[in-house]
Amino acid sequence: MTESTTIKRRGMMLVLSSPSGAGKTTLAKRLLETDGNFTMSVSVTTRAKRPAEVDGQDYHFISPATFAEKVKRDELLEHATVFGNSYGTPRAAVQAALAQGRDILFDIDWQGTQQLKEKARDDVVSIFILPPSRAELERRLLSRAQDTPEIVRQRMAKANDELSHWAEYDYVILNDDVHRAEARIAGIVEAERHKRVRQTGLSEFVRGLMT
Amino acid sequence: MTESTTIKRRGMMLVLSSPSGAGKTTLAKRLLETDGNFTMSVSVTTRAKRPAEVDGQDYHFISPATFAEKVKRDELLEHATVFGNSYGTPRAAVQAALAQGRDILFDIDWQGTQQLKEKARDDVVSIFILPPSRAELERRLLSRAQDTPEIVRQRMAKANDELSHWAEYDYVILNDDVHRAEARIAGIVEAERHKRVRQTGLSEFVRGLMT
Repeated sequence: MTESTTIKRRGMMLVLSSPSGAGKTTLAKRLLETDGNFTMSVSVTTRAKRPAEVDGQDYHFISPATFAEKVKRDELLEHATVFGNSYGTPRAAVQAALAQGRDILFDIDWQGTQQLKEKARDDVVSIFILPPSRAELERRLLSRAQDTPEIVRQRMAKANDELSHWAEYDYVILNDDVHRAEARIAGIVEAERHKRVRQTGLSEFVRGLMT
Repeated sequence: MTESTTIKRRGMMLVLSSPSGAGKTTLAKRLLETDGNFTMSVSVTTRAKRPAEVDGQDYHFISPATFAEKVKRDELLEHATVFGNSYGTPRAAVQAALAQGRDILFDIDWQGTQQLKEKARDDVVSIFILPPSRAELERRLLSRAQDTPEIVRQRMAKANDELSHWAEYDYVILNDDVHRAEARIAGIVEAERHKRVRQTGLSEFVRGLMT
């Protein structure tokens, strides 16, 4: 039987967070490659465009004044300033995608996740990715040969800070093996798509069944 | 890498409900066959044992007096009387299995599901299974040749009654194709096993990562 019956649903905002070195970037990339319904959220930023970047694809590049205006009008679902540059997630684009049943992936830290949940709790599905062991985490953090000891130390401290926020997430998965971790994320996505509250076409569909 | 790292978790009580004829029994059987961590809950009942049944495996066969005593002592998570016979789910066995991280499958109706949720909300994961169309549901309800028109009519009415309770479930899935429906249930199981609240070994594990 073909998938002729479809029940309308609202998209989700899927947040992946983890300490640096837990494999989050690889897992996000694989999800985008294997699941055609996911797109990455395109942020606005005040930092200068790099030559290889495309405006509107990598980021929307905007001026600090425009950014400040967007914050003031509550047009950003979350925002942060890193090394003097501001980054934020535009609310309108996200809401439009969700209403069309498209899912959006966010690669943000615990502070961004808290802001997203404050503004759109029912749409947010948050996953925290854990490394399999301290040794493995250190190995991954140390493997970038160009880093100075001071940078490594800072990264370790940041990893511990990020790790301390695991209890604020809906799901926690172990990245002991990239394929297993991928399957765990795929299962979570499958489940969340079938949550009753996310399927906005259900009452209509069941009404059809009962008559 | 082998699954050397395991995080302790509490089992779940997975409830599958649907109108008769939506394929629930087949899906329950497949889950038990493919997922070694699931067992079916063994009910107590006051009805007489049939020759092919094994006490303690199909049911625990008990007297009406013992059943009444169990209800009075709140030893049953849910119970119901059907055609003069009483059936119930013993609380102690379920709690012991959950504490060991084993998952338990329940094939019960919306009334049983409501009772389970009243007594053990955090452990219950409920899935409602929908048939793909009214025509398909009727075809399945009519296909048992031995049924009288009166029995078919009763079954249709009961199907509508059961259908009307879809909104009390955590997840709603369509059984338009048994393999797809199976995959949906497997995804939900995978996700629920990785819910933060269900993984009772997480704080200890993360403490180990941070030191």
